Amino acid sequence: MTNGRTVAPRRKVPRDKANDYSPESATARRDFAREETGVDLKHVGQYSFDPSILPGNIENFMGVAQVPIGLAGPLTINGEHAVGEFYIPMATTEGTLVASYNRGMRLISECGGVKTTVVEHSMQRSPVFEFEDALQARDFGRWVTQNFDAIKEAAERTTRSGKLQNIGQYTIGPLRFLRFNYTTGDAAGQNMTGKATLAACEWIMSNFSGKFKFMLSGNVDTDKKHSQINMLLTRGKRVVAEVVLKRDLLKSMMHVDSREMFRTRQISMAGAFLAHSSNNGAHAANGLTALFIATGQDVANIAESHSGVSYTQLLENGDYYWSITLTSLIVGTYGGGTGLATQRECLELLGCYGTGKADKFAEICAATVLAGETSLTSAILAGEWVSSHDQLGRNRP
Amino acid sequence: MTNGRTVAPRRKVPRDKANDYSPESATARRDFAREETGVDLKHVGQYSFDPSILPGNIENFMGVAQVPIGLAGPLTINGEHAVGEFYIPMATTEGTLVASYNRGMRLISECGGVKTTVVEHSMQRSPVFEFEDALQARDFGRWVTQNFDAIKEAAERTTRSGKLQNIGQYTIGPLRFLRFNYTTGDAAGQNMTGKATLAACEWIMSNFSGKFKFMLSGNVDTDKKHSQINMLLTRGKRVVAEVVLKRDLLKSMMHVDSREMFRTRQISMAGAFLAHSSNNGAHAANGLTALFIATGQDVANIAESHSGVSYTQLLENGDYYWSITLTSLIVGTYGGGTGLATQRECLELLGCYGTGKADKFAEICAATVLAGETSLTSAILAGEWVSSHDQLGRNRP
Amino acid sequence: MTNGRTVAPRRKVPRDKANDYSPESATARRDFAREETGVDLKHVGQYSFDPSILPGNIENFMGVAQVPIGLAGPLTINGEHAVGEFYIPMATTEGTLVASYNRGMRLISECGGVKTTVVEHSMQRSPVFEFEDALQARDFGRWVTQNFDAIKEAAERTTRSGKLQNIGQYTIGPLRFLRFNYTTGDAAGQNMTGKATLAACEWIMSNFSGKFKFMLSGNVDTDKKHSQINMLLTRGKRVVAEVVLKRDLLKSMMHVDSREMFRTRQISMAGAFLAHSSNNGAHAANGLTALFIATGQDVANIAESHSGVSYTQLLENGDYYWSITLTSLIVGTYGGGTGLATQRECLELLGCYGTGKADKFAEICAATVLAGETSLTSAILAGEWVSSHDQLGRNRP
Amino acid sequence: MTNGRTVAPRRKVPRDKANDYSPESATARRDFAREETGVDLKHVGQYSFDPSILPGNIENFMGVAQVPIGLAGPLTINGEHAVGEFYIPMATTEGTLVASYNRGMRLISECGGVKTTVVEHSMQRSPVFEFEDALQARDFGRWVTQNFDAIKEAAERTTRSGKLQNIGQYTIGPLRFLRFNYTTGDAAGQNMTGKATLAACEWIMSNFSGKFKFMLSGNVDTDKKHSQINMLLTRGKRVVAEVVLKRDLLKSMMHVDSREMFRTRQISMAGAFLAHSSNNGAHAANGLTALFIATGQDVANIAESHSGVSYTQLLENGDYYWSITLTSLIVGTYGGGTGLATQRECLELLGCYGTGKADKFAEICAATVLAGETSLTSAILAGEWVSSHDQLGRNRP
Repeated sequence: MTNGRTVAPRRKVPRDKANDYSPESATARRDFAREETGVDLKHVGQYSFDPSILPGNIENFMGVAQVPIGLAGPLTINGEHAVGEFYIPMATTEGTLVASYNRGMRLISECGGVKTTVVEHSMQRSPVFEFEDALQARDFGRWVTQNFDAIKEAAERTTRSGKLQNIGQYTIGPLRFLRFNYTTGDAAGQNMTGKATLAACEWIMSNFSGKFKFMLSGNVDTDKKHSQINMLLTRGKRVVAEVVLKRDLLKSMMHVDSREMFRTRQISMAGAFLAHSSNNGAHAANGLTALFIATGQDVANIAESHSGVSYTQLLENGDYYWSITLTSLIVGTYGGGTGLATQRECLELLGCYGTGKADKFAEICAATVLAGETSLTSAILAGEWVSSHDQLGRNRP
Repeated sequence: MTNGRTVAPRRKVPRDKANDYSPESATARRDFAREETGVDLKHVGQYSFDPSILPGNIENFMGVAQVPIGLAGPLTINGEHAVGEFYIPMATTEGTLVASYNRGMRLISECGGVKTTVVEHSMQRSPVFEFEDALQARDFGRWVTQNFDAIKEAAERTTRSGKLQNIGQYTIGPLRFLRFNYTTGDAAGQNMTGKATLAACEWIMSNFSGKFKFMLSGNVDTDKKHSQINMLLTRGKRVVAEVVLKRDLLKSMMHVDSREMFRTRQISMAGAFLAHSSNNGAHAANGLTALFIATGQDVANIAESHSGVSYTQLLENGDYYWSITLTSLIVGTYGGGTGLATQRECLELLGCYGTGKADKFAEICAATVLAGETSLTSAILAGEWVSSHDQLGRNRP
Repeated sequence: MTNGRTVAPRRKVPRDKANDYSPESATARRDFAREETGVDLKHVGQYSFDPSILPGNIENFMGVAQVPIGLAGPLTINGEHAVGEFYIPMATTEGTLVASYNRGMRLISECGGVKTTVVEHSMQRSPVFEFEDALQARDFGRWVTQNFDAIKEAAERTTRSGKLQNIGQYTIGPLRFLRFNYTTGDAAGQNMTGKATLAACEWIMSNFSGKFKFMLSGNVDTDKKHSQINMLLTRGKRVVAEVVLKRDLLKSMMHVDSREMFRTRQISMAGAFLAHSSNNGAHAANGLTALFIATGQDVANIAESHSGVSYTQLLENGDYYWSITLTSLIVGTYGGGTGLATQRECLELLGCYGTGKADKFAEICAATVLAGETSLTSAILAGEWVSSHDQLGRNRP
Repeated sequence: MTNGRTVAPRRKVPRDKANDYSPESATARRDFAREETGVDLKHVGQYSFDPSILPGNIENFMGVAQVPIGLAGPLTINGEHAVGEFYIPMATTEGTLVASYNRGMRLISECGGVKTTVVEHSMQRSPVFEFEDALQARDFGRWVTQNFDAIKEAAERTTRSGKLQNIGQYTIGPLRFLRFNYTTGDAAGQNMTGKATLAACEWIMSNFSGKFKFMLSGNVDTDKKHSQINMLLTRGKRVVAEVVLKRDLLKSMMHVDSREMFRTRQISMAGAFLAHSSNNGAHAANGLTALFIATGQDVANIAESHSGVSYTQLLENGDYYWSITLTSLIVGTYGGGTGLATQRECLELLGCYGTGKADKFAEICAATVLAGETSLTSAILAGEWVSSHDQLGRNRP
């Protein structure tokens, strides 16, 4: 007995070799799904764009997930790239989330806005070279350093916007992991760096005389996973958002005393250290995910992008300085899913579609995260956390 | 000069106090956005459901993100709860992803299917109690242990499906972090456990005679972030997927030798250990995110859910045993976004909508992840990684 | 050409099968060393005890390392077990260390002394059981829970002082790691728990009907290495030391403002979190190592014992509350090296030799660490760090 | 009531301002200790050197810890710097340790010896600079990069052997952590790098026009504690030891099948990853500590030095390739405690005393660790672990 609803010989999902990105192909797959499972994908079949825009974004297209978008803001940002007031589209199914971020944006804007800075940009691919012993691996490493210019040239021949900045080297036994670090313009850049690094490695293979084995990823990159190496050395963009919360406004708007907030901050930092968390703040992933879905980012990168470090100080006058540093924010405003129908509209809403916009978008991401941090932290302190979820969230079970 | 496109005094996003979950309210907000930013949210405004289903899922609703869904499978699962062949809806904008998972599903199914097991279920909230000194904190901890039954009763009065299993205790100085661990039926359960834990803490505050300060979260939980405590002690569900890949099929379908795969597995494990990654596998976040978006899961939980441990062995006959253990998989088939229009359809496609289905869905998640691991790992080994992205992915920049 | 100074066929170090723990045997080995290497071990041969006390502590005995001991203190401790003023023997070769700890002890004592509390005691051995699949592993885990009393009895039959408290269970794929947690009286207890756990596992092997493979350690213990599992769940003793540093004394004795100390504490916590350090304090290892060498502890346990968490608060009146929590302090006052000649004297100096003293000694360790933290942190802040090393430390190169 | 044995007003430990490094001063302190505690430090008072050699190594000298030394070996090393057969002095009080390492040395030597390579050398001090905001911090970072040569010159003026290699930069909010990385010749180099970095920072303070606060350590270094940054980026020396264990000898000498050893290696790696251990091997700290005590290393550095990564492969012919990489080995052959009486003799025994020997000594350390890994791992597999401890270790309690 099965509950996967199929009993007959495995049937393959239908594909149209001539043109698989048509409404007809999508319909054929939904029909197939209905035949196999009895489920009518009525809403999934409701989409407002022409599937012919989809090659490069999906295979076996059969429709869409309709993820509700709420509009939060305005959020005042005083960044290098993002300047002014922004309305933030947040795609989520979690009640309270938009309301909570909205509340934080109001507080931050009343306090004069959030300062944002992109401090680093580094996307990577980390191949590994295996030698007979550690000595050969070390010598290879020196050769790589000496030949950096040629390697860089080989890598950059494959891409217009990717620029190889440096190559980190890490040894375990006979293995030499190379961490190729690139700036990637306005694209997130994982594919670009993969391609460029392969070209670089091919150059290495042609030019290094020693014997070795090679693999394009040795799991040090670390793609689609949080890691300490990313937190330390940046993956994607390292972005800081800072605000000085005025003591009076914290009190009047959030019902929280800044001194008490700082006292409990000591607890949160100790707790995060003990648990060995990827982020010593509250819930960066919430705001980032909502923004990522809305704007066509690669949402799986939340695994990396949510990591960060909060650093705060209580000022002499009782105001509260709050910074968050996102260490591994992977975003793009060009390529990937950014050009799709609703995704592009949401990027445009932020003035962030296309080239020359990635840093601006990164700043908006960090500013949004900081808004969410101030709101949730205040709610926990003011004892409003569960009650607000009760009102707005779906606590049915 | 601003590029946030607003100059005038901050205007609030319009809300309709009488009924904010109507097409009119949504339209009003899109109109507002157009006035403020000049951007016409034409596609965002295209949704196929009645917004009156949205309370508890979003605030300031103005439309939807349309995220393309591809259909992968069939995937043969021999689980405790998921049995048979499954077609997997994957919502993503990343080219290659569906194709790659599909390839892995075919391999796994040809090898007889994947075995899946939910080994633990534990959702939590971790309040912190602060005392005058560590001695008082320790004594409080003993009191908590002695009064577990009453605390459990207080917690469980607030929920039908949440059951308090045990309370972990962690001391730093004068702080006692309590980690309340629940099973939560078919809901992901974060809100439920928050509410139950608050009730438990209120009981504690009424009944413990000592003096202390209290906060509902001390950042040990660790909600919406990866942490080692979650990897060790489980958050949500701990699920294992296992398969024995036949040597011949690995060769014929993936162009990979099982012995070489095992040899390079040693490298990947060393690399992940060195980088201190949240997952020593390849890209669990990819498949999980696509499934989460399609089925109305809280996608921000990818921050936690993507973490895991691969464990493999080369068998005497050259076949390859491969297991992945997701340590912190947070999913539900009831509550949250699971009942929304497209989301519910996708859960139904899997036979996973509603009560009694969460373990089945968790097994499908793990099985899907394993399919993706086998495919990407093989592609890296066979040197097909970049070339497949070139064909299917959008490598424009 | 070699620089290991031997060219001839390998010669074995001489042993006397009749009585290898005599001055003659030691001399024979020193003579052997001189013949092989030309080095006269004159000082190594100077020891003041009868080698017949050494069985169980060393093999191939040939002499001693003479490690200088400095006397620090008095240190006022208001603990549960350690009460009064203590003079601390510290064995080290690092200039400044004793002076620096001494300075911290003076400060702490002037401030009324340090409060100490042992909050947990848990020594472990973690065998691993491997099954055909995760389902069998999970079922085995349930069987272990059901049979805890019998397993405990089997374990405890092998030891007078070891008591099995509970068994943690951790699953990866088909593996079930069991973490046997014991209290071990006044011994550090690694050997005791190894033996008891082996007995328990033998009982399991005789009584569990399923098929599995077994190994006495699966590297989850984690013996002689720092790990997050130890920091979270305790290895050895979890001990807290707390002090309230008076603002005035901080100023007059250490030339540091308490408010500035608290401000920079935020930086240290952020830095430790970023680096992912085993201890967010300053240099716990220094004091512990000096105490461990002096008192015959297993010094290799510094790998585990040095990890900890500092938690501080600036009080309303400007005084500074400082706690450190050692999470994995492995010490004993009985067995191991505690009974050797100088080691026993140093334990006696602390009133800590023999049974019933381990908690007292653990409290002294934590108090000593805290003294060192206050001193070094103050020196860094007051800009005295390098200058004090210049005066006292050997900065020759 | 106190058990610290003192009741009267605190008495300070006596010091002789004229000459505190004399036998008389030491005696005065032992007498003082006896008066205060009633304990006669008879053995502690037995040392064979003139205390006048001790300035720069200890304060308040009162005698010595006599730590038994066993002689292990010979160990065949085929390194870059260490070549030939070595007899290893190991100072410990843990029964079995010397015997176990000795057994591993025999195995390794029979297999042809161990290959050793120092792959990196990097000692550091990490000051932190705090700015008004992240933008200023980033700009400062660029200025540092531009002024590297001058900073290097300022740093190197303070030391003959320290050479500044590069400066890592890490941002959190408004903080810029600089990680000054040096080679330090034959000294461990912590003091040297502290002094050089202070000089560099003073140059920065004189020459950078912006406003900032400065602290010589921001806890990113991470001195005397394990950290992931050290494991990744090296602290002290990164050293690799490699051996190919012959299948036959593993069987005949250790009673272990190489294939089974490789199978269980998968378990150990998974366990270490799950526990998040500082070392995925067995017990590096044991051998290192014994060597460190014997040779006058700063033993507290075991906190850092014990961390490492094992990487192994089963070869086609059934032989077993085993490498360990110590990532943070902090050793010196000059300065610190290396010149003391017994310590110097033990270094000389290894041909490692004085200048030009640090790499050789590092290689011996790594080789010794690898010997211990092979022995303990084999014992666990062959089921001899507890039984060998029973025979040789002191399992009394």
